[in-house]
Amino acid sequence: MKKIILFLWLVPILASAQTKDDSVFIKKMSDDILQNGQAYEWLYQLTKNIGGRLAGSPQFNKAVEWSKQTFDKIGADKVYLQQCLVPHWVRDGKNDRVAITSVNNKLYINPLDAFALGNSLGTPPNGITAELFAVNDFDQLEKYKDKIKGKIVFYNYHFNPTNISTFLSYSDAGKYRWMGASRAAKYGAVGMLVRSMSISTDNNPHTGAMEYNDSFPKIPAAAIGLQDADKLWKLAQISKIIKVNITTHGKMLPDTTAYNVIAELKGSIFPDEIITVGGHLDSWDINEGAHDDGTGVVHTMEVLRALKAAGYTPKHTIRFVLFADEEKSGRGAEKYAATAKLNNEKHIFGFESDAGGFTPRGFSFHVPDSSWIKLNAWKSLFEPYGGSVFVAGGGGADTEPLEAAFKTPVAELNPDSQRYFDIHHARSDVFENVNRRELLLGAVNITALIYLVDKYGL
Amino acid sequence: MKKIILFLWLVPILASAQTKDDSVFIKKMSDDILQNGQAYEWLYQLTKNIGGRLAGSPQFNKAVEWSKQTFDKIGADKVYLQQCLVPHWVRDGKNDRVAITSVNNKLYINPLDAFALGNSLGTPPNGITAELFAVNDFDQLEKYKDKIKGKIVFYNYHFNPTNISTFLSYSDAGKYRWMGASRAAKYGAVGMLVRSMSISTDNNPHTGAMEYNDSFPKIPAAAIGLQDADKLWKLAQISKIIKVNITTHGKMLPDTTAYNVIAELKGSIFPDEIITVGGHLDSWDINEGAHDDGTGVVHTMEVLRALKAAGYTPKHTIRFVLFADEEKSGRGAEKYAATAKLNNEKHIFGFESDAGGFTPRGFSFHVPDSSWIKLNAWKSLFEPYGGSVFVAGGGGADTEPLEAAFKTPVAELNPDSQRYFDIHHARSDVFENVNRRELLLGAVNITALIYLVDKYGL
Repeated sequence: MKKIILFLWLVPILASAQTKDDSVFIKKMSDDILQNGQAYEWLYQLTKNIGGRLAGSPQFNKAVEWSKQTFDKIGADKVYLQQCLVPHWVRDGKNDRVAITSVNNKLYINPLDAFALGNSLGTPPNGITAELFAVNDFDQLEKYKDKIKGKIVFYNYHFNPTNISTFLSYSDAGKYRWMGASRAAKYGAVGMLVRSMSISTDNNPHTGAMEYNDSFPKIPAAAIGLQDADKLWKLAQISKIIKVNITTHGKMLPDTTAYNVIAELKGSIFPDEIITVGGHLDSWDINEGAHDDGTGVVHTMEVLRALKAAGYTPKHTIRFVLFADEEKSGRGAEKYAATAKLNNEKHIFGFESDAGGFTPRGFSFHVPDSSWIKLNAWKSLFEPYGGSVFVAGGGGADTEPLEAAFKTPVAELNPDSQRYFDIHHARSDVFENVNRRELLLGAVNITALIYLVDKYGL
Repeated sequence: MKKIILFLWLVPILASAQTKDDSVFIKKMSDDILQNGQAYEWLYQLTKNIGGRLAGSPQFNKAVEWSKQTFDKIGADKVYLQQCLVPHWVRDGKNDRVAITSVNNKLYINPLDAFALGNSLGTPPNGITAELFAVNDFDQLEKYKDKIKGKIVFYNYHFNPTNISTFLSYSDAGKYRWMGASRAAKYGAVGMLVRSMSISTDNNPHTGAMEYNDSFPKIPAAAIGLQDADKLWKLAQISKIIKVNITTHGKMLPDTTAYNVIAELKGSIFPDEIITVGGHLDSWDINEGAHDDGTGVVHTMEVLRALKAAGYTPKHTIRFVLFADEEKSGRGAEKYAATAKLNNEKHIFGFESDAGGFTPRGFSFHVPDSSWIKLNAWKSLFEPYGGSVFVAGGGGADTEPLEAAFKTPVAELNPDSQRYFDIHHARSDVFENVNRRELLLGAVNITALIYLVDKYGL
């Protein structure tokens, strides 16, 4: 008991000794990033010169080349590619099309703005036309399961506007996109439409990954925009029969090759202990993947640039990793963790930026309880830069396999989430919707965290 | 001493008894605002149906009518106008024009994107053409004061990118816009250009108010965009003589009538003790005045709507005030305070929203030291809604006269400031750059603060 009390008293004293030097160092780094940071210019290159980059696509391969060259230019000690196999889903070039074709058996052509869901299989060339069955949620689906055979199920589940963190609402609504098709196919549905996971004021549909349950027929599945979803729902309430045509072209080709792109700064004291900092290089095909996850890619590059510009020699080896195929499969992250396991590496910290490039609010950590004493002592260092809200939670999807393999402590950047699902997986996720200052401030906070974890451990 | 200790022990106990009921009430109010809030729709009406509304203009008068009607519809106990006189500056319809006309006495026509500064007087019809003298700051102006006669002075003072709060950089750079013309005219300058107070990535010029010192000639003054400022500065470093033409049309007409628009909820226990909540109704003429200060206007309306929707009966009288002419003169706020003084009113709190409609981070307060104990006990109530960073500082420009007259405690909303000076006083301050969720979250936090101040005092 005495020992603990002594220890708790020591923390603030140690912290205040640390913080003076550290706050000076972090301020210097912040000034450099806000004046000389390249993240915004790199993001322009990635989004405008390359654009959407679904893992397995030629654009993804172009992004791999560009990232490798950019890491080389920044001046990492070592830059290399890590090969992996990824599912090879293609939207197949043609436009997805969803349209109301008749209401109460009268001709009523009304196209809806729609995108096929990722991993979903296409329809015959002229699509499928069937009666619509609109439900709010899975409870209603179960209640009316006898009425669903031969129909297109439309899930109009709303993104909950009352959660302040929009990620909570995404977790809640996301299951309809992910498993809605097979849940409906189980009862004989021939197609599935889902209200986009968003609370935007526009009508852009939001795509994203879905998964088929192999026990049931693999029916076509698409997301529609919010205004169209409201219109369709309203129409369903006042009409006996609405017929809808879904025409999509998705195909799953044999697995193909993709790469994690990895840069390293070699540790000066503990070269065999590894800190991973990353984002995912792939994006959806229907936008520029700017916030998802172009900003994570250029955050990662900016941390490397800033540490080098500050002349900081890390104690531990820092790996800057751009993961392949977060969106469709997570295979890039799995490969990274599996290779680390095979090589018997020691991973002391995993970090990911995959929640957008908006103004940073803080971080979520999944770390041992004992680490929180240290984290709490660091908070004041982040206050001037906006990133001091530290919450318990997970890392990102790309640090999960690392965590599972090594019990590595992990963290993720939490930027302001209010705008994220306006553009997430929609055609509006483009460079123009990223703000330079907000992006750079994210890099400031991440660099500070990586610096502290490297210097003091976690 | 004993009394103080007892008191300090009591605060957390009181606070925890309060916070349970209060957090339930605030959550209910937040859910209502995020689901049923009208602020975004009101902002559309103000910005798209009325648009830019310089005090004294027909658009301002239209905004007065619209605000009065909207307050009536929301259902205030009383809605009225408070007349005041405001300076009547007009840009005079024609386009402002600034152009390089020659370099080293060779013809070199290069128009620069420019806006005359508010309150500045126009040139003769064909403008003035004179040699440019570029300086970084006032120190350089003083150093080269003998070289300035007959020239156009260009202040290329940079908005400091290293401050995390962009308002700090604005305070720092703003003096060049405000007093730069007369400081240059003192040494014989015939015109003045200023680098826009911004760190945006575009080339939009940012207008704003300036003031002439009557001791010196009133020379024309305009702001130019950042890309043009960089170009002009670079050119000035490598050229012997750059000639520039400034053609502006500003005129100061005799003072004219404007109005503060005021709505009231009558206090049930202390009807003679007044809480003021406000924003300013006027804006610049070259944009829609969306973030400056349309969002403050609709925040004010939303607080009224939300308190009524929650069935809350205030103890004190709450006044919702839309101030006239914050931008050019502050006369609306002066009139409000002077009338209050004349009527011997008691003002217990003044609040303003005039820092944009971005995600709220907290509030700045100018309150007695003793109030901080209460404020600190409230912080946890704001944490779920993002507005818990409480800092010492001022209220807004429109609560200053109230504070001066009554020593009224004042506060202002501090939204995220990273994007604000990208659009502030520029043509890009339009409805499309306001996010619905961010706007409504501001209203949630303001409503919570007004509720707590009314319930517990400050």
